[in-house]
Amino acid sequence: MLIQNIQYMTVTDDGKWIANSGDILIKDKRIEKIGSVEYDDSIEKLDGRGMLALPGLVNGHQHTPMSLLRCYSDDVTLMTWLNKKMLPLEMKMDNDDRYWGALLSMAEMIKSGTTSYADMYIGIDHVAEAAVESGIRSVIARGLIAMDSDYEGRLKEAGDVVDRWQGKGNGRITTMIAPHSPYMCPPDFLKAAVGLSNEKNVPLHIHLAETKDEEQMIQEKYGVRPVHYLEQAGVFERPVLLAHGVHFNDEDFKVLQSVRGGIIHNPVSNAKLGCGISDVKRLLNSGVKVGLGTDGPASASSLDLFFEMKAASWFQKLKYEDAAVLSAHDILTMATQNGADILGIGEEVGSLTVGKKADVILMDMNKLHLTPSHEPANLLVYAATGQDVDTVIIDGEIVMRGRELTTIDEEKVMANAKERTKELLKRL
Amino acid sequence: MLIQNIQYMTVTDDGKWIANSGDILIKDKRIEKIGSVEYDDSIEKLDGRGMLALPGLVNGHQHTPMSLLRCYSDDVTLMTWLNKKMLPLEMKMDNDDRYWGALLSMAEMIKSGTTSYADMYIGIDHVAEAAVESGIRSVIARGLIAMDSDYEGRLKEAGDVVDRWQGKGNGRITTMIAPHSPYMCPPDFLKAAVGLSNEKNVPLHIHLAETKDEEQMIQEKYGVRPVHYLEQAGVFERPVLLAHGVHFNDEDFKVLQSVRGGIIHNPVSNAKLGCGISDVKRLLNSGVKVGLGTDGPASASSLDLFFEMKAASWFQKLKYEDAAVLSAHDILTMATQNGADILGIGEEVGSLTVGKKADVILMDMNKLHLTPSHEPANLLVYAATGQDVDTVIIDGEIVMRGRELTTIDEEKVMANAKERTKELLKRL
Repeated sequence: MLIQNIQYMTVTDDGKWIANSGDILIKDKRIEKIGSVEYDDSIEKLDGRGMLALPGLVNGHQHTPMSLLRCYSDDVTLMTWLNKKMLPLEMKMDNDDRYWGALLSMAEMIKSGTTSYADMYIGIDHVAEAAVESGIRSVIARGLIAMDSDYEGRLKEAGDVVDRWQGKGNGRITTMIAPHSPYMCPPDFLKAAVGLSNEKNVPLHIHLAETKDEEQMIQEKYGVRPVHYLEQAGVFERPVLLAHGVHFNDEDFKVLQSVRGGIIHNPVSNAKLGCGISDVKRLLNSGVKVGLGTDGPASASSLDLFFEMKAASWFQKLKYEDAAVLSAHDILTMATQNGADILGIGEEVGSLTVGKKADVILMDMNKLHLTPSHEPANLLVYAATGQDVDTVIIDGEIVMRGRELTTIDEEKVMANAKERTKELLKRL
Repeated sequence: MLIQNIQYMTVTDDGKWIANSGDILIKDKRIEKIGSVEYDDSIEKLDGRGMLALPGLVNGHQHTPMSLLRCYSDDVTLMTWLNKKMLPLEMKMDNDDRYWGALLSMAEMIKSGTTSYADMYIGIDHVAEAAVESGIRSVIARGLIAMDSDYEGRLKEAGDVVDRWQGKGNGRITTMIAPHSPYMCPPDFLKAAVGLSNEKNVPLHIHLAETKDEEQMIQEKYGVRPVHYLEQAGVFERPVLLAHGVHFNDEDFKVLQSVRGGIIHNPVSNAKLGCGISDVKRLLNSGVKVGLGTDGPASASSLDLFFEMKAASWFQKLKYEDAAVLSAHDILTMATQNGADILGIGEEVGSLTVGKKADVILMDMNKLHLTPSHEPANLLVYAATGQDVDTVIIDGEIVMRGRELTTIDEEKVMANAKERTKELLKRL
């Protein structure tokens, strides 16, 4: 496939995102050539005029089935939200609910320019089925919570998910081991999960330092801070996706410097649940990789990463009372290459680079709110939304064209999601 | 006109926004009836199925011509942004630039559901022309800055704007007197502006307490805080639209309680320029009316009030580290009735109420990211964007239908805005 006469974004050595003009040639799922491309007439062509091509966005932390609970509960304290609203319904979810919830999330993600994402949930096989169908690139993990004492059984399920799904969907599906969080995993359980990650040779995915309550709880229970609790269990000896990372002290920042993987920052969820603002500037300055995520749809409400990009910049500027902190260029890198690196797929996707898998999104820039065009990076982060994405290519395949999804029947997924939600509420 | 079979939002006595089903009858520019409407076949009908009707949004603080400088400069400190980037270009703007910049802003506002807004700028006649053409409801004011000593001349121009434009556009255009800010207006000038507001019987529009620098500057120059500086000049004896209101102390809150008008909160601009978070919770609890605005497009980047709604909620929850602060219901009231009240047009617009002018927007709710529908108010604030607005009615006239503007040629306004921007940059 040849994308002709397009503007496309590449990154300079000092991290600036600049727009170039030319063509993009995609062959055997990969970016074969960028710039001035010679071609013969037999190749499939895609007119790129008026469009701006970007690497597909990476949503680094998600619980896709929770789309069924979008806006079911907002504006209540975190504990009320979790214990009184979310958990009672999540306990009643069945596999069909998870499948349709996941497919709804994936449709929404693709439609707003996300091409790769990471998921942690139970019943994850049904999420994986939706991922294969939808064409999205997905890093799945069975969430591990010590709800009962059958640690062995849970760990076996998590390992089986790796065996069953790693490399499926033409390699689009990869896997992780996901002990839920310091407060949901006792030391032995957490250590066993680290061991499993080692044995299966896949990274870890875990929530960390989301709330002050967590900090206090771990301190009281184990006499250490959450970061040290993970360190003691060997978490940082493995590549690890750390979700949230809001509450760190000086010592924590030192420990985090050596992390392979990094932090997925979920600014909207952290704000909506009143958790606080992660110190992204300090993390980046400490050499910790930071990507972006939405968290589940029931807290973030939207899966549009363009909102997260805006929020990440706004929040950091507010935290430091300095407009110069965290530029649009930094934000774009967080939403693409950094996220891909943390998901363990950064060598294959995350930038428009010859040889990488073709995960490309085309933005329609011929819009009132994107006029005039002084600085494309700024426009993308501060003015654009996911609804400006026109075309999405994942693994060299067109999954959206002219805002029409090619792999998912939108009306069907909405109808089923509504029906499943109605039934779910009845079971409460 | 009859909008049939629609869901529409009304507000309960305790401030909850709820969805009802029925019809909306519009006659002689006003809402004639809501609910179950009997009609004959001769009336023009509009199918409302799948749509949700809201009162049009109110953008309480704008400098519309600055759309030409959207994303021209971001991620720099406020003083660099203002003095090195904005002012040099603004000094070179001519009336055609202002007209096309204003029309671009208005097109973008209408397309994202804003039906009323307030503007402060120089060359405001050309903004007013665009407002009449576009069909938007506009509260205009000539910005007053003591750049030279010709106070009389400037005040005369401001007064003439009132005489020339008040009530034009079938009553859609109203006016204010706009002394720019405490730091741009010496005491005599400010007092004279208050006098003019009194003489012309129109409200004031002024920036207040946007930055810490302002606080320090006024304190050093006049020995009082900005709020007291305005009080001494008699500003609070008039109805007044106060833009920003980020930096207040205990005493300030007391003074503000008696303000007629209120504060227009511009969360995105305040974040992007690193100014801080206005204490909206305390303002509302003190009985001060708070509305929402974008500020100019060169700081906010986008004129989509749905972003401001999200930002307002997120920021307040972060400020208080409490997810329960400022609900979606509060936010919707800020973005509609409160804004209309502060603009001095709250008896005519701001809610779907029989007898009010018909400023109505229809949201297309049949979208992936708005599925399922547990709580319409939450969906509108946390998940929807301006691009979900399908139809906009202002003063009983359809100005957008199926996302097509009826009063403005989009391609023409984009082409002219680009051309004017190119020419403007050449003059630098």
